[in-house]
Amino acid sequence: MRTIEMIDGVVKMIDQRKLPRQFEIVECRDYRALADAIKDMTIRGAPAIGAAAAFGLALAARESRAPTRDALLRDLDAAEKILRATRPTAVNLMWALDRMMRAARATNLDADGLRDFVVAEAQQIAEEDVAINRAMARNGAALINDGDSVLTHCNAGPLATVDVGTALGVIIEAHKQGKKIHVFVDETRPRLQGARLTAWELMQHGVPMTLIADNASGYYMRRGKIQKCFVGSDRVAANGDVANKIGTYKTAVVARENGIPFYAVMPTSTIDLTLANGDLIEIEERDAREVTHIEGVPIAPEGVRVGNPAFDVTPHKYITALVTERGVVVPPFAENLRKITG
Amino acid sequence: MRTIEMIDGVVKMIDQRKLPRQFEIVECRDYRALADAIKDMTIRGAPAIGAAAAFGLALAARESRAPTRDALLRDLDAAEKILRATRPTAVNLMWALDRMMRAARATNLDADGLRDFVVAEAQQIAEEDVAINRAMARNGAALINDGDSVLTHCNAGPLATVDVGTALGVIIEAHKQGKKIHVFVDETRPRLQGARLTAWELMQHGVPMTLIADNASGYYMRRGKIQKCFVGSDRVAANGDVANKIGTYKTAVVARENGIPFYAVMPTSTIDLTLANGDLIEIEERDAREVTHIEGVPIAPEGVRVGNPAFDVTPHKYITALVTERGVVVPPFAENLRKITG
Repeated sequence: MRTIEMIDGVVKMIDQRKLPRQFEIVECRDYRALADAIKDMTIRGAPAIGAAAAFGLALAARESRAPTRDALLRDLDAAEKILRATRPTAVNLMWALDRMMRAARATNLDADGLRDFVVAEAQQIAEEDVAINRAMARNGAALINDGDSVLTHCNAGPLATVDVGTALGVIIEAHKQGKKIHVFVDETRPRLQGARLTAWELMQHGVPMTLIADNASGYYMRRGKIQKCFVGSDRVAANGDVANKIGTYKTAVVARENGIPFYAVMPTSTIDLTLANGDLIEIEERDAREVTHIEGVPIAPEGVRVGNPAFDVTPHKYITALVTERGVVVPPFAENLRKITG
Repeated sequence: MRTIEMIDGVVKMIDQRKLPRQFEIVECRDYRALADAIKDMTIRGAPAIGAAAAFGLALAARESRAPTRDALLRDLDAAEKILRATRPTAVNLMWALDRMMRAARATNLDADGLRDFVVAEAQQIAEEDVAINRAMARNGAALINDGDSVLTHCNAGPLATVDVGTALGVIIEAHKQGKKIHVFVDETRPRLQGARLTAWELMQHGVPMTLIADNASGYYMRRGKIQKCFVGSDRVAANGDVANKIGTYKTAVVARENGIPFYAVMPTSTIDLTLANGDLIEIEERDAREVTHIEGVPIAPEGVRVGNPAFDVTPHKYITALVTERGVVVPPFAENLRKITG
């Protein structure tokens, strides 16, 4: 099934907190439950939470008893605020909400017509996400040679999107094309999306892989075991700086030091031209317990002080190219990003 | 108590696999039990396993029923082989065994005299380790300024030595000198020595600290939150290349990229002039389960393939200086290491 879908007014999503131990579907019947699911990372991954936010507004439209178009728009505005506040870094969330609200306002439909329209628009965003990911996968797979070993960080697979995936979509596509590849998977502390999700997805697709501690990627790079790095992205600034899962920055610096190309893969909806550079991107600080406990088991002294930034910013100088559904963007990024999004 | 000590023919050590949840003492009454304790990391840290190996030979001497000096030396040789095979990377293990066997052979004592001598020599190595660590702590603390935030990786504290510690000894000494410092502690996957041991030791000493995922250190470096890095070392080659806990290399590269001084702290017994460079150092590959399970809980799909190198090599160009008991060694390392060990 898809990572997230809306059927008969119910949003169903794979519970990503429980994989790989359990494959469970969570159902959200109102937008507040869906907002909670984004916040607690039942669903995560920049494109997936974009689609989730759109479905959140679709749920809000169906929940609302508003008799008029204006009253319904007010209810949607209220829901939109709740959904927008769930996670601050991935811009796809804001992008999807903006697109939904703009489209809703642009119609002249009555309340019932608008309800149906909002649901259809959310479905459209989800469908487009799959198509966009397929295009990215093809564009990126061309960068992978037969025999390459590639490194990926966090999870940018089908589970991070509605389907197909961004960085992992590229890798799986190269494998499907018959290229002999091997994937090094960073486990990605603190939430272990690499160990839990990426390893699982690659095993499902039969792609040869090795799971490693995040600390070990430099060891393999220095020994010539890694030819390319592919990561997803949560937000790209106008100059090509990339916000992505914490640890991406260290990995990119060490890749460049070893002459290894470093690619970030994202739909153009992840590109935020309103921000001149990556240091303007808000970085989410998450709960200390993500670091001090693993699966509920404490691994640090009680009462320890913790820093837990969920993302970091990789300056564009460490990035070889950005892979989008519209093509591969190379430096100078500021100029070429304007062109491709224009 | 000390990390390891020998009292009345019994070697007692703090069980480092159980901290910080339980403080337990393990007793070894024969050298094979002690070899197992090194292998399973009941005791770890380069200087501590040097002392442990010496105590292993002391146990072997006491166990042996050899009636003659030559027979006892043969028994010690047999024990030495078992102890030497426990862990391949930290040279202190080999250094302590070599010193013990050389000293034993250099005596003309009879079997009983040699037994007592071997025990005394092991005690001497442990005593010297504490004194050496105190000297390193003073030498290194001079590098830390009032107000500095420093990063450390893995555990190079009192627990990694007989007492005092190497990199963490430096940090604790700076704190004791009244300098206002803050420590960022990498949790250090896969075995989490930072979260479990370093955080615990710093809290015991009242040193202000923040525990972070290994992935997060680059984030704090880029934001100017870290002024210096201090790590221990498992082996230093003649050219100054440093083998240390996996992840040290990535951290050192990112530190240099951010203009942050990177110091490795070690007794001169960690310096191996027989190896021209760090790439000749054997790197221990440890069990996959260290990556796939945390505290017995699986965190990855069953049957996943794992890479688990326990150490990596940081080329000397990333290292600002090596802190030893005899002073701070700066580049050119090849020349200055020969001088300080000569």
